[in-house]
Amino acid sequence: MSVDLERIQKAAQTIRGKVARTPLLHAPSISASTGAEVWVKHENLQPTHSFKVRGARVKMESLTPEERARGVVAMSAGNHAQAVAFHGRDMGIAVSLVMPEATPFVKLRACSDMGAEIILAGETLADCQPMAERIEREKGRIMVHPYDDDDIICGQGSIALEMLEDCPDLQTLLVPIGGGGLISGISVAAKSLRPDMEIIGVEAKSFASMTAALGGETAHCGGRTIGEGIAVKNITPRTRELVRAHVDDILLVDEDDMEDAIACFLDQHKSVAEGAGAAGLAALLADPQRFRGRKIGIVLCGANIDARILNAVVSRKLARQQRIIRLHVEIMDQPGALARVADIIAKTRGNILEVQHMRLLLDLPAKQASLDLTIETQGKQHSAAIIADLRDAGFRVRAIEHLLGRE
Amino acid sequence: MSVDLERIQKAAQTIRGKVARTPLLHAPSISASTGAEVWVKHENLQPTHSFKVRGARVKMESLTPEERARGVVAMSAGNHAQAVAFHGRDMGIAVSLVMPEATPFVKLRACSDMGAEIILAGETLADCQPMAERIEREKGRIMVHPYDDDDIICGQGSIALEMLEDCPDLQTLLVPIGGGGLISGISVAAKSLRPDMEIIGVEAKSFASMTAALGGETAHCGGRTIGEGIAVKNITPRTRELVRAHVDDILLVDEDDMEDAIACFLDQHKSVAEGAGAAGLAALLADPQRFRGRKIGIVLCGANIDARILNAVVSRKLARQQRIIRLHVEIMDQPGALARVADIIAKTRGNILEVQHMRLLLDLPAKQASLDLTIETQGKQHSAAIIADLRDAGFRVRAIEHLLGRE
Repeated sequence: MSVDLERIQKAAQTIRGKVARTPLLHAPSISASTGAEVWVKHENLQPTHSFKVRGARVKMESLTPEERARGVVAMSAGNHAQAVAFHGRDMGIAVSLVMPEATPFVKLRACSDMGAEIILAGETLADCQPMAERIEREKGRIMVHPYDDDDIICGQGSIALEMLEDCPDLQTLLVPIGGGGLISGISVAAKSLRPDMEIIGVEAKSFASMTAALGGETAHCGGRTIGEGIAVKNITPRTRELVRAHVDDILLVDEDDMEDAIACFLDQHKSVAEGAGAAGLAALLADPQRFRGRKIGIVLCGANIDARILNAVVSRKLARQQRIIRLHVEIMDQPGALARVADIIAKTRGNILEVQHMRLLLDLPAKQASLDLTIETQGKQHSAAIIADLRDAGFRVRAIEHLLGRE
Repeated sequence: MSVDLERIQKAAQTIRGKVARTPLLHAPSISASTGAEVWVKHENLQPTHSFKVRGARVKMESLTPEERARGVVAMSAGNHAQAVAFHGRDMGIAVSLVMPEATPFVKLRACSDMGAEIILAGETLADCQPMAERIEREKGRIMVHPYDDDDIICGQGSIALEMLEDCPDLQTLLVPIGGGGLISGISVAAKSLRPDMEIIGVEAKSFASMTAALGGETAHCGGRTIGEGIAVKNITPRTRELVRAHVDDILLVDEDDMEDAIACFLDQHKSVAEGAGAAGLAALLADPQRFRGRKIGIVLCGANIDARILNAVVSRKLARQQRIIRLHVEIMDQPGALARVADIIAKTRGNILEVQHMRLLLDLPAKQASLDLTIETQGKQHSAAIIADLRDAGFRVRAIEHLLGRE
């Protein structure tokens, strides 16, 4: 058995009607701002909101009645787990899921709501593997691996068939890489149909496992990443060799790139992406020159982002654009000082969101106090004007940099 | 001239290739949680991110070369303005836009970036009308009215043709009402093709102008609404009579309903909607029983929501779910008290986001101090457990209600 076009086409047949036939949508705003012609494959609109339902279904459909009766086990930090739980409920197959202890509660609940048994084990996905293998051994459950499995890879490959059906003249595909199952399936399908098509993988810089594996090295992975869906340490030979054979290049994106891409999907394409789901767009935004004028398919592969993280990404973007600024203003500790500052800001039409009035700081003379102001502005020029007006009125003003971020 | 199916079909021809042929997508998560079969018409994916580009294009295409040379004028708080500016740039027609003074800066810039001339006038859309009429008179520009125009109405009606093409057996359409142009076009088209189809309009409770107009009354409109795109005071006879003839019912939604719907689109359908764009879903969420088992088409008509407002909606939802709570804890003003409280919360795995430690409140004895804690939890049960643990340890604890909101 191996992964080829015919088998991917058969996998596509298998999952028809069981998962969504997601749309490939033109993104006019992102196209205009990047200079590429951008098409987005909306795997965020799958049930469970990631592409993982494709491969999981193919695998679970391949089981014999006897195997189905034994149930399945999967290890996953989220999206693969939800996909297996989803199909387990639909097909009447018992599901055990081994998940890292730090898995967000909403993801745990999504899985247990679908009837799956949850076992928490260790900090990372790698830590889950021994427990998953023990359940496989002791309970006789069938392992549904997140990527190291030909059925899984063929299921993910169906994405490329649909993209080429909807838009046959795509020139480049940008595909996130975690364990490599998604890009393995997509690249085999796309290169079989269109050998001239460029397939570019995208990894998180802090988890560049595939890049390392291709060079015969072990990646130094680690740290928290907003792209936790592609934060995979252990690459297996199966996906490594498919990637070596069919993928043209791998680009690395950092945390800021992924944050920018999440915000861009939200603002310019009115769509939610999780960090891993935004990795393809992140690579485009990080180097638009490379893709200028090309017709690009971006796989928005998942959208399971915590609401608080999404909010933080939006806030940080506003701060980077200086649409929200924080100023430290020194004032005399006497009646009317706050009113004067507020009045100056009001006149320039800045909108004060938060005030912290402090009198006890040791770095100020006893007669002085300080204000920390969070202000909504129209952007950098407006922010500069507000600061200038306060200084012209004699106040000592300092922008608090941690809110302004990079740029 | 009047609005009929043939003319709407012709309008659809006119705008083909000039605006997006948006997808009608099944929403499995929203369907599962409401008990209806929900399909979403994604007008949020139009260029300029609202349906307004349809009618505006039909109107502007209808102009003679001489009229085009004179340019156009429009009054709008946002979406219609952006649509007219978009086509003005594309067609080489000069555009003057009269907009309320409080129009968000991002919307002003979006219009001026497309080459439109912006005139700010008054507080509301109604205040803009005299200025727009003056520009029409004095500069000879052609008025492109946001809704009181057959061409505009026919353009918006093309939405219904596409929805029925993609999903011929929809039973109910939920359509937001502002001035009534959108629902007028949609209801004429849908009822002509499918007389049995149920067409339900949705108005913001604080701007129930169409409901009032149908009853021969003038609505008492006012106040700020998150659905500013449907906050229209003046209904004209044209749309009023089309609605009377073709619309089965009008439902009213309040601010909380629209906020819920924005959050639901984001969380369960991974899509961005503005308040007005979410009004249709708001009506479904407010009374799911009414729609149970029906096949419903919801027009997600716009997505131009300010990033800060979107953030606030998400935060408020977390607060309502008690995934973020705020507690007021009274402690003895002595070393170690904060550490004890923090330790109790850490043991229940609550995540402290913010601490305010106050010693100067007048309602506490001199030896006491208080903490205001903002804590991330897993929801209501977890929140209750944290409060119980603190009380068991002897602390006086009060939940600060303004963050908890309704429910």
